[in-house]
Amino acid sequence: MVAPLRVGIAGLGTVGAEVVRLIERQGRVLTARCGRAIRVTAVTARSKAKKRDLDLGGVNWAKSPLELAADPDVDCFVELMGGAGDPALSAIETALKSGKSVVTANKALIAKHGVRLAKAAEQHGGALNYEAAVGAAIPIVKTLREGLAGTAIDRVYGILNGTCNYILTRMEQEGLSFAECLKDAQRLGYAEADPSFDVDGHDTAQKLAILASLAFGTKVAQGAVYVEGISSIAPEDLRAAADLGYRVKLLGVAVRTAKGIEQRVHPTMVPKSSSIAQVMGVTNAVTIDGEGIPPLTLVGPGAGGAATASAVVADIADVARGIRAAPFGRPVERLQETAKAPMERHEGGYYIRLMARDHAGTVATIATRLADERISIESIVQRHPDGNSVASSKGKSAPVPVILITYATHEDAVYRALQAVQRDKVISGRPQVIRIEKN
Amino acid sequence: MVAPLRVGIAGLGTVGAEVVRLIERQGRVLTARCGRAIRVTAVTARSKAKKRDLDLGGVNWAKSPLELAADPDVDCFVELMGGAGDPALSAIETALKSGKSVVTANKALIAKHGVRLAKAAEQHGGALNYEAAVGAAIPIVKTLREGLAGTAIDRVYGILNGTCNYILTRMEQEGLSFAECLKDAQRLGYAEADPSFDVDGHDTAQKLAILASLAFGTKVAQGAVYVEGISSIAPEDLRAAADLGYRVKLLGVAVRTAKGIEQRVHPTMVPKSSSIAQVMGVTNAVTIDGEGIPPLTLVGPGAGGAATASAVVADIADVARGIRAAPFGRPVERLQETAKAPMERHEGGYYIRLMARDHAGTVATIATRLADERISIESIVQRHPDGNSVASSKGKSAPVPVILITYATHEDAVYRALQAVQRDKVISGRPQVIRIEKN
Repeated sequence: MVAPLRVGIAGLGTVGAEVVRLIERQGRVLTARCGRAIRVTAVTARSKAKKRDLDLGGVNWAKSPLELAADPDVDCFVELMGGAGDPALSAIETALKSGKSVVTANKALIAKHGVRLAKAAEQHGGALNYEAAVGAAIPIVKTLREGLAGTAIDRVYGILNGTCNYILTRMEQEGLSFAECLKDAQRLGYAEADPSFDVDGHDTAQKLAILASLAFGTKVAQGAVYVEGISSIAPEDLRAAADLGYRVKLLGVAVRTAKGIEQRVHPTMVPKSSSIAQVMGVTNAVTIDGEGIPPLTLVGPGAGGAATASAVVADIADVARGIRAAPFGRPVERLQETAKAPMERHEGGYYIRLMARDHAGTVATIATRLADERISIESIVQRHPDGNSVASSKGKSAPVPVILITYATHEDAVYRALQAVQRDKVISGRPQVIRIEKN
Repeated sequence: MVAPLRVGIAGLGTVGAEVVRLIERQGRVLTARCGRAIRVTAVTARSKAKKRDLDLGGVNWAKSPLELAADPDVDCFVELMGGAGDPALSAIETALKSGKSVVTANKALIAKHGVRLAKAAEQHGGALNYEAAVGAAIPIVKTLREGLAGTAIDRVYGILNGTCNYILTRMEQEGLSFAECLKDAQRLGYAEADPSFDVDGHDTAQKLAILASLAFGTKVAQGAVYVEGISSIAPEDLRAAADLGYRVKLLGVAVRTAKGIEQRVHPTMVPKSSSIAQVMGVTNAVTIDGEGIPPLTLVGPGAGGAATASAVVADIADVARGIRAAPFGRPVERLQETAKAPMERHEGGYYIRLMARDHAGTVATIATRLADERISIESIVQRHPDGNSVASSKGKSAPVPVILITYATHEDAVYRALQAVQRDKVISGRPQVIRIEKN
């Protein structure tokens, strides 16, 4: 029997405490699965005095994360403090440089300093596992890093933020506004007091940058991700999407194009029949398009103490078993620089909602401006404010929504056409534009 | 740089040939990911002369699988011949006993001889990887074996046979009979000339036995699985299910109960809102309920040359990287015997369709017989043959379907109640009974 794996845990919040409990409760199975015991031998947390309902008898309390990271009696340093910088960063670096393996759930840190940490892991031979950083219990890191090792990936995309999906789901199902749903989400604890990190898409962007690195061998870089949040989405958009056979989801998409790897986060129309469209509420999902094979979709809890702890313990178990994969699937020197995708060159279909001043001929004007830019229209519908569609304009003065779906085109063509339509003064207000992602 | 991993492939059908191509095409990435090259050094197949459109220059042709398995210049023996016995069995055993690692896509063999082979792998230190045996490219084996290593699993269930799901999908969407859809599936190559292995549930049972072993530590044993196929399902059942908010899927279900691990394959009503209910056509899916965490669902291609080859190459890559997990997640001596679940003690909700002789009072008689067995009724609907429901019987002579949904009860109570109803002579024909699986 190999000696037990000695685990040191920095951070004893919801996740950290659950990890301690899980290692205790699953001790026998873990030992059987890993061929050796896993033992929490040291911890550290901001307050030692806090009540935690944990049995920490016989466990060392380190004075600081750095002390824990340097502890020679710890084989595997588990960072569950969070934060994109110190003390997490230097503690992890210290642990790696002392030859330890590291497990973390810290997506912000991996998104910002992943390459630097991967290099340290590589040089000193330790593992750097971070399954919980993306999609909590969904084994997406393992799937991309190991399960699809031999498959070229064309695209990876997903619902990576439960808050946004919860808000969009309720908006769609109950016809509520973004602001109303956000308030509810905050009340229920699904959204932070300052929700911008979630609803503006930054959380999704961090996770996407990690997935892109694993899928395409890019250097993880949040700055390379185009980001747009969901606050501009109106219930009308969700209704129109439904009528047209789509749902609106905040997706993170990383895709191989002729011009390089495009990474983007934005509200997206997805076909209702796709696996990703079925994902409701706080649930997360990731779809992977491998070359020549039908899409693979992983659906599950993207957050929560138990789900996150499950992934952390699986990562620790991999360390115990001696499984070592390069943190981003390949040696750091092979990872490629990646630039922010120029969205004006993005190619795809578009949903466009315009408020037409209700004169006869408005639809014709819009169609002409799109034709000028060689944009083909898949469908165009003018609606009564009550939601019924009408074939032609009605001669009333109140603006009437016109909903368009285009075939694949370039984004800059769409914006040029819409500017022309605005100059024609046949619409009022700002056009709403949502990108379509085909499955 | 570590020496290349020398791979020997037995079987050059669709999957085998695709594995050779994938290793060639992905060579650079595989080397980067694994830290060493992967090289096909030897092959064997029934006919050397067959045209395969493969570059096998410099590759040894072994005279037989056994010769290939014993070849000292092969590190990893890849078995893609199929068949639950020899030559696959003895070839794999030979390879394992000579210390090689083995990768196979052979579910029948793993279901039948998995324990014996796992023991050989354990004794001689090689890996025994079989990701492709269940759900092709869906990384379900890796997820259960490694990704959820620290999580107690309560239930694992899934759509594991594309043929059955294709037939049920078309029956539902087009109102066709089982026989019609089967014929079409055969024409399109989704079903074999002898379809019984698929449609009677045996293929699903083999895969389920493997998943149960990984999830619960049972000794893989196809004989421990209760099996029922889909041939008795009528379009009326799918229509009634839809009206009631369900879909019918052929599921393999392995669940921890107070009486032990229950393994069963049968047509199942699943709530339309569940992830598994969204899975249409030949697509496969597996849902895992881990203790205390929301369900995790993996959806993807369950068959096909490219999808299967993708999983085989990932398994080979794990061998190259030195990843070794116990074949069934724990040492063989820890695996538990498991007995066939006594389905008469199965607990759950039931869908029941009866053809009522259309007298006033039939519904009352049925309800009384169920009440006698303490079965609570969630809903009961009597229908016109045209599909409209009626609140009471109509006094006509043609039998009218009565659809019932029960709350959770024991299966033997259901059958006793239905026998009593049959003795009452208020129904004609055999009752249709479909188990409900809640998510």
